Amino acid sequence: MRVIELHRSVTDSNDRDAEALRQELKEKGVLLINLMSAPGAGKTTLLSRIITDLHDQLRIAVLEADIEASVDAERIEALGARSIQVHTDGMCHMDAGMSRTGLEALDLTGIDLAFLENIGNLICPAEYDTGAGLNVMISGIPEGDDKPLKYPLMYQKSQALVLSKMDALPYFDFDLKKFEKRVHFLNPQIRIFPVSAKTGEGMEALEAWLLSETAKWKER
Amino acid sequence: MRVIELHRSVTDSNDRDAEALRQELKEKGVLLINLMSAPGAGKTTLLSRIITDLHDQLRIAVLEADIEASVDAERIEALGARSIQVHTDGMCHMDAGMSRTGLEALDLTGIDLAFLENIGNLICPAEYDTGAGLNVMISGIPEGDDKPLKYPLMYQKSQALVLSKMDALPYFDFDLKKFEKRVHFLNPQIRIFPVSAKTGEGMEALEAWLLSETAKWKER
Repeated sequence: MRVIELHRSVTDSNDRDAEALRQELKEKGVLLINLMSAPGAGKTTLLSRIITDLHDQLRIAVLEADIEASVDAERIEALGARSIQVHTDGMCHMDAGMSRTGLEALDLTGIDLAFLENIGNLICPAEYDTGAGLNVMISGIPEGDDKPLKYPLMYQKSQALVLSKMDALPYFDFDLKKFEKRVHFLNPQIRIFPVSAKTGEGMEALEAWLLSETAKWKER
Repeated sequence: MRVIELHRSVTDSNDRDAEALRQELKEKGVLLINLMSAPGAGKTTLLSRIITDLHDQLRIAVLEADIEASVDAERIEALGARSIQVHTDGMCHMDAGMSRTGLEALDLTGIDLAFLENIGNLICPAEYDTGAGLNVMISGIPEGDDKPLKYPLMYQKSQALVLSKMDALPYFDFDLKKFEKRVHFLNPQIRIFPVSAKTGEGMEALEAWLLSETAKWKER
């Protein structure tokens, strides 16, 4: 298990660094997806399911970012996927320089799709371009249907939203229609994928979209 | 509904400001509790229950901090409690200067117990002393039992932990014993209150503790 300790990036031009990283990944034919959510929304569980389901079709790698600990990278490695853990020195987000450092240590040779599992936080990660080709956020049913009102930026910055823990819907007071309306008010283009990584509900649609986006990224 | 727009505090000495605010609150006999959690852990639902249950015994006020929106303050006001909403200008935490501005606008005359409902975030709020007499964090069953491994600072800075959404325990893979062991490893003194604001389970013990801490704060 490799762990990389990151420090604050020295550059002031994160947007430029992010764009450069995105172009390099494009040339390598690697789609990087920046996966963002609150703590405990189920990022690692979702990734585990995707890696297992798509392992004959895509070569997937995962860059795990956390303040501390390596439990997530260990779970991903146990599935046989390439994975590396980065620690952010207390910082609540990843930026492009940090992504680059992590990806270089991860080694992307032969990889089609790489996930950056960002810090569990709905605020700071949305403010920094990581160089990813797509931003995807996860929102869990137990978090409630009012989250778009309180953390609008992340909904605006994401191309897709995974609504996780759909199996828990009967036990929570969550209004799906109201949630979708709030999300689309902030971002009319966003794709919403309601899923349960536990029961498999909705995973097929999400995985078909991932396959299609990875293919499009290699073509363009 | 009053909404205060906050800006970055001008002072560099947050610890000193926090200590000064704490002393002033002490002299006024107001216990300020800094309530921290991830987004969607149920801070407002818990506060609503506490306000309803204790309204004959304590005069409670709530300072609601969010990046945007005022839905939480509206819920609290609907219960008849004094409440004010502050917006943090995109910042992921509250500091002592921001608390002071909010509390001054809130007016603490006649108040026994004030809650600062901090930004939904497990990282940044733990790094700033708000001037509160007690730090209390909420962790929800759906967030998983591994959170102490990933966000240790908040567990170390809190005097009490409310383990919320206990009614959802049967539907999630959450190991209570393992969770408690991880929490006590980080903070042997922390009080853990497993509760469900929905069914009322565990609320009595939590509210007895709040009554006792408020009385102690006035005596000392």
